[in-house]
Amino acid sequence: MDIEQFRKAGYAAIDSICDYYSTISEIPVKAQVQPGYLIDQLPKEAPVEGEEFAEISNDFQRQIIPGITHWQSPSFFAYFPSNSTFESMLADLYSASVTNPGFNWVCSPACTELEQVVVEWAARMLGLAEKFWGSSGIGGGVIMGSASDSAFTASIAARERALRVLSSQKGVERSANGQIDIPDSIRQEYGQKLVVYGSTQTHSLGAKAALMLGLPFRAVSVSIEDQYSLTGESVKQAIEKDVQDGLIPFLVYATVGTTSTGAVDRIAEIGEVLKEYPTTFLHVDAAWAGVAYALPEYRESLRLKEVNEYADSFCTNYHKWGLTTFDCSIFCVKDRKDLTQALDVTPPFLRSKEADEGTVIDYRNWQPALGRRFRSIKLWFVLRSFGINGFQKHLENGIEQCQQLAKIVEQSSTFEIVTPPSLALLVFRLKPSSSSPEEVSEDELNILNQNLHDRLNSRYDVFLTQTVLHSKEKNIFCIRLAMGGRYTTFQDVKKTWDIIESEGEEVLRGWKKVMAE
Amino acid sequence: MDIEQFRKAGYAAIDSICDYYSTISEIPVKAQVQPGYLIDQLPKEAPVEGEEFAEISNDFQRQIIPGITHWQSPSFFAYFPSNSTFESMLADLYSASVTNPGFNWVCSPACTELEQVVVEWAARMLGLAEKFWGSSGIGGGVIMGSASDSAFTASIAARERALRVLSSQKGVERSANGQIDIPDSIRQEYGQKLVVYGSTQTHSLGAKAALMLGLPFRAVSVSIEDQYSLTGESVKQAIEKDVQDGLIPFLVYATVGTTSTGAVDRIAEIGEVLKEYPTTFLHVDAAWAGVAYALPEYRESLRLKEVNEYADSFCTNYHKWGLTTFDCSIFCVKDRKDLTQALDVTPPFLRSKEADEGTVIDYRNWQPALGRRFRSIKLWFVLRSFGINGFQKHLENGIEQCQQLAKIVEQSSTFEIVTPPSLALLVFRLKPSSSSPEEVSEDELNILNQNLHDRLNSRYDVFLTQTVLHSKEKNIFCIRLAMGGRYTTFQDVKKTWDIIESEGEEVLRGWKKVMAE
Repeated sequence: MDIEQFRKAGYAAIDSICDYYSTISEIPVKAQVQPGYLIDQLPKEAPVEGEEFAEISNDFQRQIIPGITHWQSPSFFAYFPSNSTFESMLADLYSASVTNPGFNWVCSPACTELEQVVVEWAARMLGLAEKFWGSSGIGGGVIMGSASDSAFTASIAARERALRVLSSQKGVERSANGQIDIPDSIRQEYGQKLVVYGSTQTHSLGAKAALMLGLPFRAVSVSIEDQYSLTGESVKQAIEKDVQDGLIPFLVYATVGTTSTGAVDRIAEIGEVLKEYPTTFLHVDAAWAGVAYALPEYRESLRLKEVNEYADSFCTNYHKWGLTTFDCSIFCVKDRKDLTQALDVTPPFLRSKEADEGTVIDYRNWQPALGRRFRSIKLWFVLRSFGINGFQKHLENGIEQCQQLAKIVEQSSTFEIVTPPSLALLVFRLKPSSSSPEEVSEDELNILNQNLHDRLNSRYDVFLTQTVLHSKEKNIFCIRLAMGGRYTTFQDVKKTWDIIESEGEEVLRGWKKVMAE
Repeated sequence: MDIEQFRKAGYAAIDSICDYYSTISEIPVKAQVQPGYLIDQLPKEAPVEGEEFAEISNDFQRQIIPGITHWQSPSFFAYFPSNSTFESMLADLYSASVTNPGFNWVCSPACTELEQVVVEWAARMLGLAEKFWGSSGIGGGVIMGSASDSAFTASIAARERALRVLSSQKGVERSANGQIDIPDSIRQEYGQKLVVYGSTQTHSLGAKAALMLGLPFRAVSVSIEDQYSLTGESVKQAIEKDVQDGLIPFLVYATVGTTSTGAVDRIAEIGEVLKEYPTTFLHVDAAWAGVAYALPEYRESLRLKEVNEYADSFCTNYHKWGLTTFDCSIFCVKDRKDLTQALDVTPPFLRSKEADEGTVIDYRNWQPALGRRFRSIKLWFVLRSFGINGFQKHLENGIEQCQQLAKIVEQSSTFEIVTPPSLALLVFRLKPSSSSPEEVSEDELNILNQNLHDRLNSRYDVFLTQTVLHSKEKNIFCIRLAMGGRYTTFQDVKKTWDIIESEGEEVLRGWKKVMAE
């Protein structure tokens, strides 16, 4: 494809994206295809001769679009939103045009420096403490691909820091550069004794990070009474038990806005407990809810002050509710040396004058991989185009929709809200009113709601996800409705709710029939 | 930005990319900026009010482009190429338009299925054995962000497999699902005794993966005699020493096409050695050179048959020399259970009917992170638009340029080729001809070449990287010239070579002057 062919194909691509967004509200949110639909259509091998691009892009419409679940549909309420914006799309296009693997400042100075600037914009907009800003010279932030990457990177930083603390406790002295090099003997002795903590509500990224490190993950129980938040006391008990068994706590994942219900862990309580254990590191995963710190009125309930005081690292995904096309996970640390001391490997071909002189940062030492895409440009475009005001307005829309929906569900005789509405997330379940003939057991309720979810799941015009809330008291099967889509109006929310209500009635009708028999 | 504003901004973006590529050969390859150039220009905080998009995109040209090192410039010869193509850029744009986090088949069936198809196209085009194909039902491939990610993922798979083998050896029985669950006691006993092997020429991704696992990396020495290839004998010696010390080998990184010189490790020899050690896993990193398997005449010298016979996993980056915009690293395994048994964590909210029924694969269980971008579309566009023929032609161009340049350097009286030209990579150094008054020591040569690199590095119209070749015999400082750019012609290579020659003469002139004093 030469330049003029690209111009033509480029205009056509832009036009077809315009068409897509013009009609997205009219098509079912979920892809209506069966497993293997595409595999069966495509040839087994690449073509020998090149094909016309018009034909290829036509196949995108013909073969790919039918297999897309429309996350930008105003009727998408599953998982969490994954906002994509025109500004981000254009940024990704600009980024691809000047592509480079970005591992060093010298690869393309603009990539490193723009990331330093906009990650700090993002952190400041949320009210994160100065210690998390890159301009502090001590802490700083970096863009990761996902909250999993951020959490995993935190886990490596935490493990290495814990082993340095243990080395120091065992009398290992600092080397000439002032660092502690962890001796093999310390790794041998303590490397497998380290333990990660989270709650049963912690996203699977916690268990997965532990799995990748080959270390145990303690999913500490939570209670309904505490609204599914992890408390200091329960962390303390879990740690004490492990310490009695000769194990060493080194990492706690606390969550601001859990996936299941939007619960906020008791960060200050946990932080106070961890003060007793100098080997520990506190990572706060606010993948979904963290962007809501942009609204000052939510900072207290989301415990921002506690994050600023107690967290060693913090993550939030601008690519969820934050208007930035996937991927853009912001990962901030209070001490960048936690990262560089765990991740810096510099062979001769990666050395550069500027890095040797210490005048620049090389982000490859802040992350697991070497190569990295130029992602900061999309966050730059988004924050400039929306401004803080526009960003806040978008968040407020989602929250208002949730509040409006909550009022409807509260008044429903067949549904109940299971946990307090959290920002733009509503967790509910079918629950026949007390006027129904029998008292319904929790097990029965779970089955009814599983039935409801199955019914909803078999439709293509709604998309919601299930969850099971585990707690000390009981397990509750419920359904999540996550608002915050870029194009979602309350009318769209209501349309989906009407479907839920009517499917719920069908489930109850079937159930009453069975009960009557 | 509404749809019509997007159309306008989109056309403008396409036009500006056309302008960029129309003039790219006329601008210096390296960014002419100093550290802090951008940080100093930009505000400290995001704007409160949104700005006009025209202004934002204008700032991309005004503030970002000057800080870009032009990896698509025909005069880019540093590191390895990072080909970007118009086809890929449009694919990235289409991908962003239907963005989704892609962790499950159900997220967007097209994303999982297209990836299954095109990764297999990519594997078949390279002649990888059927065992590596997804359609085998046993092995398969996945797109990763970088060769580091692939290597690291292999390391986790390898560690878990080794611990399962050890569990089995210690009498742990298979659980109901036929798997071996690794007991804590096995992790405690062996978890820190595992060792990773590579050579001094292995990319830093090897040492970094080991660092992330908290395990030692043995950089086994190579020799000039073996052309910097890792041999079976030297791996054997390294392993035997560790085994004597009570350690357990579990992973060898072999390289096809090392970064420094394009060396190819002796995979069959290494594979034969590993047969004695059932805890070991062989990952072949062919990040750069692997795409050259698309040319059947290079399969033997690049040891494809050996990869097919002995490797457990294999990686090559289509985003280097393979015409696909970063990122697109292809990672193939012979047994997908090596990945899923190491990486599968499935909480209720990630369950789906299709995955439960086993009719689809969920790529999140093949990689460290949960979320993933829709990257297969760019590889699909590229392979269809170029066809296998076009892809081969592109590779041949780079190789021919290298051969032509090699002829020139061979005839030079002041330069020598240090290692045999490898595909499109030439490694050379300044070496005054024997007609010069004194015999020059190796140390002096290294200093001269460091001087040459410093001189080249201070220019903006050339960009080359240094390397230091460590071997049993000696350390050689040399310079790499990596061809394979999408738009590079031999004329561009020659222009850069002329600059190298004249800078080399300057270095020699200065040196002779000092010697004469």
